[in-house]
Amino acid sequence: MFDVLFSHILKKVSLTEEEKSLLKSFFNAKNLRKKEFLLQEGEICHYLSFVSKGLLRSYHIDERGDEHMNLFAWEGWWSSDIYSFSFNEIAQFNIDALEDSELLLITRENLEEMTLQIPKMDRYFRILFQNSLATKERRLVSSNSYTAKEKYIQLADSNPQMIQRVPQNLIASYLGLAPETLSRIKKNIALGK
Amino acid sequence: MFDVLFSHILKKVSLTEEEKSLLKSFFNAKNLRKKEFLLQEGEICHYLSFVSKGLLRSYHIDERGDEHMNLFAWEGWWSSDIYSFSFNEIAQFNIDALEDSELLLITRENLEEMTLQIPKMDRYFRILFQNSLATKERRLVSSNSYTAKEKYIQLADSNPQMIQRVPQNLIASYLGLAPETLSRIKKNIALGK
Repeated sequence: MFDVLFSHILKKVSLTEEEKSLLKSFFNAKNLRKKEFLLQEGEICHYLSFVSKGLLRSYHIDERGDEHMNLFAWEGWWSSDIYSFSFNEIAQFNIDALEDSELLLITRENLEEMTLQIPKMDRYFRILFQNSLATKERRLVSSNSYTAKEKYIQLADSNPQMIQRVPQNLIASYLGLAPETLSRIKKNIALGK
Repeated sequence: MFDVLFSHILKKVSLTEEEKSLLKSFFNAKNLRKKEFLLQEGEICHYLSFVSKGLLRSYHIDERGDEHMNLFAWEGWWSSDIYSFSFNEIAQFNIDALEDSELLLITRENLEEMTLQIPKMDRYFRILFQNSLATKERRLVSSNSYTAKEKYIQLADSNPQMIQRVPQNLIASYLGLAPETLSRIKKNIALGK
């Protein structure tokens, strides 16, 4: 179960065998069946969750009952309500499984303790959070500035796995588009328009 | 010039006098006059900038020429186009000074070198980026879910200094509101409505 996590960490920092073994002790394994919830709005998010296998989505439901996709996470991605996790506040995101999933969970206390004992993990998470923040800001700019077609093409170029793996109505929600709009865009692209 | 930076860092990690002195060597000082640009869209953002004194804003201009405020940064805050900085890509934000400002700049190469030589700075930036990511996600949710009045009250509660210090038309842009809408909200609040 830790193979995917270690291969992800080793892209950013090196770990000795002792550190790997110590690191394992800070995580708990959890399996989720398709459609099962990891987190529901109104709870406290106690974990950062790493996906070893499967696919999670996090999303918010607004006052009108509309779902807004925040993030999809498959093998090698982390998922959390990071505000709730960091500040021990009520979560505003729901997280559930789009496929049967295998997860590795770490609590806030264990994250603090692990990074104190293995300072290189601060480096790993510094790079992870820096890249996430960068990507999130860029997505905010895109949502203000691009046409629906440009948004879809940008996503398909930068993240082909999401297009293949995530149901189309959820991709539409992620891009802030009506499902019919996304269908029309895909049809026009297929027709070379 | 480093007093504000050190007091900000010491809230998150401890530093020895040797580390402080080493840390200084990775930064360059820069002064900006009011209205002067630190970064313009289309350039590469080479720096993370810490504000020792003054006030910066970062914003994006969309296809229709409308400005979208991203962030205001005063004493103790960092400013950057973090995507451009992290991935050496073209910036989509402009950063300029709303007041005469004194800054401390660090390049990507110096950030990497500094964190290797002073690993506690990885911890500092891990916490900084984690908190920024959390705040950014929460802001995205608010923009989908709250009424204009709720957004303003939430901002005034969580960030009274921004309300006092940043011109009202820019606060309106930050909240995604028309200036007249914000004026009306403030008038109603003052009238106890």
